[in-house]
Amino acid sequence: MAKNYVVGIDIGGQSSKLGVVDENGKILARDIIKASSSSDPKKVIDELAKGVLALIEKSGKKGEIRGIGVGAPNGNYYTGCIAYAPNLPWAANGSVDFSKMLSEACGGIPVTLTNDANAAALGERKYGIAKELKIKHFIMITLGTGVGSGIIINDELLYGSDGFAGELGHTCAVRDGRKCGCGKKGCLEAYCSAIGAARTAREWLEESKEESLLRGKKDISSKDVYDAAKAGDKLALRVFEYTGTILGSSLADFVEFSAPQAIVLFGGLANAKEFLYEPTLKAMNDNLLPIWRNKVQLLFSSLKEADAAILGASALAW
Amino acid sequence: MAKNYVVGIDIGGQSSKLGVVDENGKILARDIIKASSSSDPKKVIDELAKGVLALIEKSGKKGEIRGIGVGAPNGNYYTGCIAYAPNLPWAANGSVDFSKMLSEACGGIPVTLTNDANAAALGERKYGIAKELKIKHFIMITLGTGVGSGIIINDELLYGSDGFAGELGHTCAVRDGRKCGCGKKGCLEAYCSAIGAARTAREWLEESKEESLLRGKKDISSKDVYDAAKAGDKLALRVFEYTGTILGSSLADFVEFSAPQAIVLFGGLANAKEFLYEPTLKAMNDNLLPIWRNKVQLLFSSLKEADAAILGASALAW
Repeated sequence: MAKNYVVGIDIGGQSSKLGVVDENGKILARDIIKASSSSDPKKVIDELAKGVLALIEKSGKKGEIRGIGVGAPNGNYYTGCIAYAPNLPWAANGSVDFSKMLSEACGGIPVTLTNDANAAALGERKYGIAKELKIKHFIMITLGTGVGSGIIINDELLYGSDGFAGELGHTCAVRDGRKCGCGKKGCLEAYCSAIGAARTAREWLEESKEESLLRGKKDISSKDVYDAAKAGDKLALRVFEYTGTILGSSLADFVEFSAPQAIVLFGGLANAKEFLYEPTLKAMNDNLLPIWRNKVQLLFSSLKEADAAILGASALAW
Repeated sequence: MAKNYVVGIDIGGQSSKLGVVDENGKILARDIIKASSSSDPKKVIDELAKGVLALIEKSGKKGEIRGIGVGAPNGNYYTGCIAYAPNLPWAANGSVDFSKMLSEACGGIPVTLTNDANAAALGERKYGIAKELKIKHFIMITLGTGVGSGIIINDELLYGSDGFAGELGHTCAVRDGRKCGCGKKGCLEAYCSAIGAARTAREWLEESKEESLLRGKKDISSKDVYDAAKAGDKLALRVFEYTGTILGSSLADFVEFSAPQAIVLFGGLANAKEFLYEPTLKAMNDNLLPIWRNKVQLLFSSLKEADAAILGASALAW
């Protein structure tokens, strides 16, 4: 039987999303599995496999599945392992031979693994805006809780010597800047993630007495900052300008590395496109060598956020 | 007749070096041609071709030349053009169709062109330390008058979408830092080139009254700083520590992009290995994510400086 379908799985700290996908990126069946609190990898993976097999059954494509693609934090393409992923209790303190175990539990269907930002880049290439615009060289930046990246060079994902290439969220944006969750200082992620932008707002509120819709709010999130900006709040608008300026300056450095045709932004914070686009593009161009100035496109993902994680992971399996 | 030899040409602002090279990196014949002050590309290229043909004749390998590889400032692999190269009067104000013109003037021998730092990386891969150590993922950083780079990923040079990938000398090392020759601020080149290191020394001498062997010297060069450091001069030693610290911090960002096995340093300033190695390595590791800490090698080119430019360019022609 022809194998014209794949399964995409996005493994997250809160839940895992799975779907059966055809070659055009249509999701035939989908499911969400709540994250297990178990620290036993075998138990977690067996449960996941049960969900996968049930979903394949439900899709009516049993026997037609070419492979399973998985995007997971700290997933390694070369080794098939998930290692030291702080948000996954079953893979937080060591290395789990994930691809092999899941494949065995799914009756031998081949499993391919990479990290979530790489999966997002593959999704954009196979189904998204990079496919639409026929772009073969781009850098995907995911602006979520953290900042991730996937680098596509000549239509192929860059894995580097060890499978970990593309940790652009932890390149230095501000020398000796804010402490980042990774332990280093001044990482791009500390400024341009959803958490980073909210932190900027909180810091500025503390440092000044400026009036703002955000003043007095508890546990300010990037969504709060977005809503305030929408309502014309000046401090909130400046937060996006600042965030975009730092992001754009870093993007210029990335362009000078791999000379892509485009940067593609995705993730929660990228939904604030209306506030982020201009300062980011300006800072990128201001910091580029003349040979690239005004030549590199700044794009936003064209995939629906609900589907993107599944599609990205599924793209690995073709 | 088997074509087992190539010609390597390194085009510089002062002179061009050429050599006939065999597969093991042995230079059978070599020549240096003083740079022409002519602004006529045809005249300059015809003169160069005359030199090339004479050298081939002298080497006794006429009819056995597989190709000509050329490293030149702003040389583009994809287009074969040299464009807006400030140090080459005949290619300073426009784009010269170099490869095509040189090939025609050399009786049709194929010509392949790239920039000088890319050529250096190819030389290291074909004949140098990357070959010795069987390293397939590395970043070559040339610390000369400027800072150049060539990025090898899975044994291939990274050209990017337009042939200009790898301008790491113009990534930002110090946000809003020193003005660089390119017009931007804080570029790595403004600190870690030979000129940058000398500039650090001059700035520090001006800012303090600290005793130093360099005090009172006119037109301090990086060689002067090196000689002073050799003699134990504290300010000069600190210049190298500072230069290495900035370099290493930037190297960490580059590792987080492409996850190479090694960084290879080359060029005039890299001769100060004894003073640069430790601070550079320390800063790189201090700024790396734990997955790479103490795992990426910091190497120095194993090629003789006099040969490296010719060998690097020749490596293109295989």
